[in-house]
Amino acid sequence: MPPRLLQQMQFVVEIDKLKRVLRQTLLTDGSRRENSAEHSWHIALMAILLSEYATEPIDVLRVVKMLLLHDLVEIDAGDTFCYDDRGHESKAEREMQAAERLFNLLPPDQASEFRALWDEFEAQTTADAQFAATLDRLQPLLNNHQTQGHTWQLHDISRDRVMQRVAPMQGSAPDLWQFVQHLLDECVANGYLKPTRE
Amino acid sequence: MPPRLLQQMQFVVEIDKLKRVLRQTLLTDGSRRENSAEHSWHIALMAILLSEYATEPIDVLRVVKMLLLHDLVEIDAGDTFCYDDRGHESKAEREMQAAERLFNLLPPDQASEFRALWDEFEAQTTADAQFAATLDRLQPLLNNHQTQGHTWQLHDISRDRVMQRVAPMQGSAPDLWQFVQHLLDECVANGYLKPTRE
Repeated sequence: MPPRLLQQMQFVVEIDKLKRVLRQTLLTDGSRRENSAEHSWHIALMAILLSEYATEPIDVLRVVKMLLLHDLVEIDAGDTFCYDDRGHESKAEREMQAAERLFNLLPPDQASEFRALWDEFEAQTTADAQFAATLDRLQPLLNNHQTQGHTWQLHDISRDRVMQRVAPMQGSAPDLWQFVQHLLDECVANGYLKPTRE
Repeated sequence: MPPRLLQQMQFVVEIDKLKRVLRQTLLTDGSRRENSAEHSWHIALMAILLSEYATEPIDVLRVVKMLLLHDLVEIDAGDTFCYDDRGHESKAEREMQAAERLFNLLPPDQASEFRALWDEFEAQTTADAQFAATLDRLQPLLNNHQTQGHTWQLHDISRDRVMQRVAPMQGSAPDLWQFVQHLLDECVANGYLKPTRE
């Protein structure tokens, strides 16, 4: 067997582990926590469906690639909850080491491509990366709305903190940002989300 | 809110249900059955990594779209195990009805696009659809190899039946087909898979 193909297959087997990384978000029926692999599937399909809302022209295939691979580092680094300030102190370092190990399982050209896409997503300076992040932030809001604000209740998160988190959406996809405002208003009205930190 | 965006969001929420559809395959660590959403993520990323092995030129974005959406019909129709002959008698009809309901949650232009991609995957007459199916068949073999042939043992599946199932790979991606031959030989040698039906 050609060594290149064997390296690729080793990577394909390795990334199965992302299915075991649990996020804070529940499935819409509240039955269990979502894992990072199925989350990545969800937002990749959202990129295909919602690309028309990006302010700047985006390359859908690049956005989909970014979304499919952006969480792979969690195989080593674990999922860091977006409102976990302490976890975020060490997140960059942990994820950088994970990227180093994981992407280098691939043949050099693909290792470079994947690493560059991941770095671009993390840097948040291109339209593709910003639109990808918009979807990554939108999906858990939908699931929180469906589960009566489960994650917000559990971690005492208020609307102003969620607003901070979704603020970058306003530039990248104003219609989706508008949608989120309505959704959060409804969550506050229903008692799923506190308006401000008490 | 624009009705188009609301329809799209309703679809995004609806498809979360794919995370609850269980397949026969286990995760590589054998800890639980895989669901169809995480399986779709896995093979979409495989399409990006392995596109160089397609015999004919393929459009990677179209293949990825097909793979991300091809199992959505299982939300209504359930997963039909690939070696379940009885289940296959009613599969086409059940999945057709599911496609009718699910894709029509979307605005008409996107409903048509998704339905056309799903029909194309099912018909297996284009290079894109054939390469997509190759990956859909390859991934469970990798997981079965990692779990000592769990699904094959459970359902008394022999190498000749697996060979029938993967035969179309030979035209679509001969190097991947070759890889599968080696993998299955190893599975037989290790006692994970019987050579023929007894």
